[in-house]
Amino acid sequence: MSTADENHGDAPPPPQPEKDNYGDFTGGELFPIPGYEWAEVAELEPAMAAGRAVRVRGAAHAVRALSRLAFLTLRQGSSTVQCVIPAAGGMARFAGGLSRESVVDVAGVVSPPREHVRGATQQVEIQVEKLYCINRATPNLPISVDDAARSDEDVTRAKAAGEQLVHVGQDKRLDNRVIDLRTLANQAIFSIESEVEHIFRNVLRSEGFKSIHTPKLIGGSSEGGAAVFKLDYNGQPACLAQSPQLHKQMAVCGGLQRVYEVGPVFRAESSNTHRHLCEFTGLDMEMAIRESYFEVCDVVDRVFVAIFDHLNKNCAKELEAINRQFPFKPLKYLRKTPRIDYEEGIRMLKEAGVHVEPMGDLNTEAEKKLGELVNAKYDTDFYMLCRYPSAVRPFYTMPCSDDPRYSNSFDVFVRGEEIISGAQRVNEYELLKQQAEARGIDVGSIAAYLESFKNGAPPHGGFGAGLERVVMLFCGLGNIRKTSLFPRDPKRLNP
Amino acid sequence: MSTADENHGDAPPPPQPEKDNYGDFTGGELFPIPGYEWAEVAELEPAMAAGRAVRVRGAAHAVRALSRLAFLTLRQGSSTVQCVIPAAGGMARFAGGLSRESVVDVAGVVSPPREHVRGATQQVEIQVEKLYCINRATPNLPISVDDAARSDEDVTRAKAAGEQLVHVGQDKRLDNRVIDLRTLANQAIFSIESEVEHIFRNVLRSEGFKSIHTPKLIGGSSEGGAAVFKLDYNGQPACLAQSPQLHKQMAVCGGLQRVYEVGPVFRAESSNTHRHLCEFTGLDMEMAIRESYFEVCDVVDRVFVAIFDHLNKNCAKELEAINRQFPFKPLKYLRKTPRIDYEEGIRMLKEAGVHVEPMGDLNTEAEKKLGELVNAKYDTDFYMLCRYPSAVRPFYTMPCSDDPRYSNSFDVFVRGEEIISGAQRVNEYELLKQQAEARGIDVGSIAAYLESFKNGAPPHGGFGAGLERVVMLFCGLGNIRKTSLFPRDPKRLNP
Repeated sequence: MSTADENHGDAPPPPQPEKDNYGDFTGGELFPIPGYEWAEVAELEPAMAAGRAVRVRGAAHAVRALSRLAFLTLRQGSSTVQCVIPAAGGMARFAGGLSRESVVDVAGVVSPPREHVRGATQQVEIQVEKLYCINRATPNLPISVDDAARSDEDVTRAKAAGEQLVHVGQDKRLDNRVIDLRTLANQAIFSIESEVEHIFRNVLRSEGFKSIHTPKLIGGSSEGGAAVFKLDYNGQPACLAQSPQLHKQMAVCGGLQRVYEVGPVFRAESSNTHRHLCEFTGLDMEMAIRESYFEVCDVVDRVFVAIFDHLNKNCAKELEAINRQFPFKPLKYLRKTPRIDYEEGIRMLKEAGVHVEPMGDLNTEAEKKLGELVNAKYDTDFYMLCRYPSAVRPFYTMPCSDDPRYSNSFDVFVRGEEIISGAQRVNEYELLKQQAEARGIDVGSIAAYLESFKNGAPPHGGFGAGLERVVMLFCGLGNIRKTSLFPRDPKRLNP
Repeated sequence: MSTADENHGDAPPPPQPEKDNYGDFTGGELFPIPGYEWAEVAELEPAMAAGRAVRVRGAAHAVRALSRLAFLTLRQGSSTVQCVIPAAGGMARFAGGLSRESVVDVAGVVSPPREHVRGATQQVEIQVEKLYCINRATPNLPISVDDAARSDEDVTRAKAAGEQLVHVGQDKRLDNRVIDLRTLANQAIFSIESEVEHIFRNVLRSEGFKSIHTPKLIGGSSEGGAAVFKLDYNGQPACLAQSPQLHKQMAVCGGLQRVYEVGPVFRAESSNTHRHLCEFTGLDMEMAIRESYFEVCDVVDRVFVAIFDHLNKNCAKELEAINRQFPFKPLKYLRKTPRIDYEEGIRMLKEAGVHVEPMGDLNTEAEKKLGELVNAKYDTDFYMLCRYPSAVRPFYTMPCSDDPRYSNSFDVFVRGEEIISGAQRVNEYELLKQQAEARGIDVGSIAAYLESFKNGAPPHGGFGAGLERVVMLFCGLGNIRKTSLFPRDPKRLNP
């Protein structure tokens, strides 16, 4: 325990837990409270915890001071518990003075609730015996967690009833992301994101893939495209990798056979859209293939069906929390994902009266429409479109051997939006160089990559997906900023 | 199968597997060989495979043409198998013309070897019936896999015996990393790196940590330090994160309680050392703590002992492969890692006659020496040094409440070199701002971070390690470039 003169500034000395039942510990000291066992709010269930003397730390989510006592709703992650504070001895008055979101330690006895616990997730109460404030929040927070947690429907409904509820706009949320992240929906979104990554890794690992880390700082011009961030690297011109494409292929050429990487991908996007970020988390893999690029599609199928299954089976609570604030329909997907040829997709769109260029790329609208048509025909929100025209794919894409106007490539769609792009890659030096030159790429800037294909390069293919986009589309969230912890878009570089 | 006029350039038409038993398939086409089942070299064991008609794809590691037949050593990852090619019909001649490292498909019958199989890992042979070259390597490779795989000892021993063996220097290896990666030692190093990451994630996940992804593109000046890479972000000054420090703390302030991140970390280092890179893979975690920063040390202990145990138990083959080219002593570590106070460390060094400043940082030499002293006393290469002087730690480090000249911080050492740095963080806005200012940091550039501590911030701590350094030190590799797939140092931005 620190003594008074070690405190910073003129703060009063901290309370002594043996003597003082409440007070401020706001110098950062950590201390024991003898006689109380540490517990997590989530584990406070009647069967587990009733009668136990516990110590719990959490945020002061809400305080209601009544005449005889005070109620403090304590929040930890996505769990909340009601704490009952007796009026005697000044503790209830102290509680009434706690600013919302302050971090507090509560020590007391767990009991079944005397009344229905309003707005708390746990079906017990804590009869508070000691109450210390650990960290004071400023009394005027720029946004409140309750306001940030409100659904658009609630605001609209209230308005219709003549009531004015605060609606926190996207920019204000993101400006105050540290508070915004505390909503139940956001706690759930980032749990789910962590789970998606886990299953992605798990399935690939079980199939013999190794996790690799390719450099983000690269010489030259990444994949020769526009939209790269440039920088000075100790006097050499450098840029940030737009994807691990070149290096993951080089890893396979280096004998690593099956590799994957989860890491940041940088795109100097200039236009604001609902589904592009300047920095996102790439889910990439690359593998030696035997007879067909469909071997890559098979892996996509196993990985993503496993991800969707896992979320539905093991993350029901999280999905429900998201659904409450951002309602969405469950994703429809099949055990075996339909694979539709690009030509067939064009035919379907034409039959539906949509104007499309047979050898051109699909625009966002046509993709949406095709998603609807496929859904109507196959009853799935998840499908693959294969054999894209070569002209709309990157230079490293292998043309079909039966018709080089098409390529051994595919995109995967969720709810009519692209989430995965994959292909067999060109593993022949001459053809690769030819295709790069034909697209106007300065082959000098990708020389090290090209040279890799002179040393014996196995047939290979792979895919890339975006973690934020997977979660956005699975949960129908409509804006990728919702699934990025601290999003970076053309205007936003903060917080 | 493609027809002649679809081939690129003037290459001859590819062979037809039904008719032609050997030839070049170098247009990138993929094809079936009816009657032969695909197999991986590693699974070709006598019990499993003898008598099976298999098809295997790999690199032509070596070809020996004898009078009556030819032997081809086929390599796939870190496994090799001897293929016996009959002279009849021109196949042996074709094999003799294969450049080393060319990718070839072999179809044949697995048999027990007639003689001891020289230089092959698998104890079977393949009696070749069909042999196709899939991708020709250039005949004059800049380095050979055999040369790159040679240990320094072998070169020295040969020299002493009057024989001249090629020694491939580090720079030449790295310039030709795609070939260099094919050595057994490198295949093993990157398997082990993948395993280290897996166990790191696994243990943390089992303790309730979530995987997060913090932005690498940040405004201002990262942690206020030098050595940052600067860039232009759509007209705003930006830099690359020197670590996920600020954002992982903000995630904990956002209610995520226990988070970890494995991702790139950028340091604009200017001096070449054996243990610094300009880009490396950070293993970071941050967690709410209850009573002490030792809770973070406890996690370090569980995570790293689990990693070391796993490598020793499940990666013996890989460690052996590394040991053959780069001999090292097994790492000594204990079930419970010793925690030594900085003051005690200083005392030990002084007693050993080493000049050290009691309140200054240890230099590399003193760290090495202390490692030896600790090893002599505790019989371990792995220990923690706790309670560093505040003056030598970053501004966000929590001072000790009993003596602010020291801090609630620690470093962890392997074989006398630092691999982990951790601490309790300051969660009080005023103190944090004060400490930043006292170190001359422009607090405006970290405003969003500082503001996070006004919203109610729980006590927390965490650590950061470097993946490449963990593997380098576990395997005593002596140079961090050996454990980075495509290393970036002050001079190297390629390949």
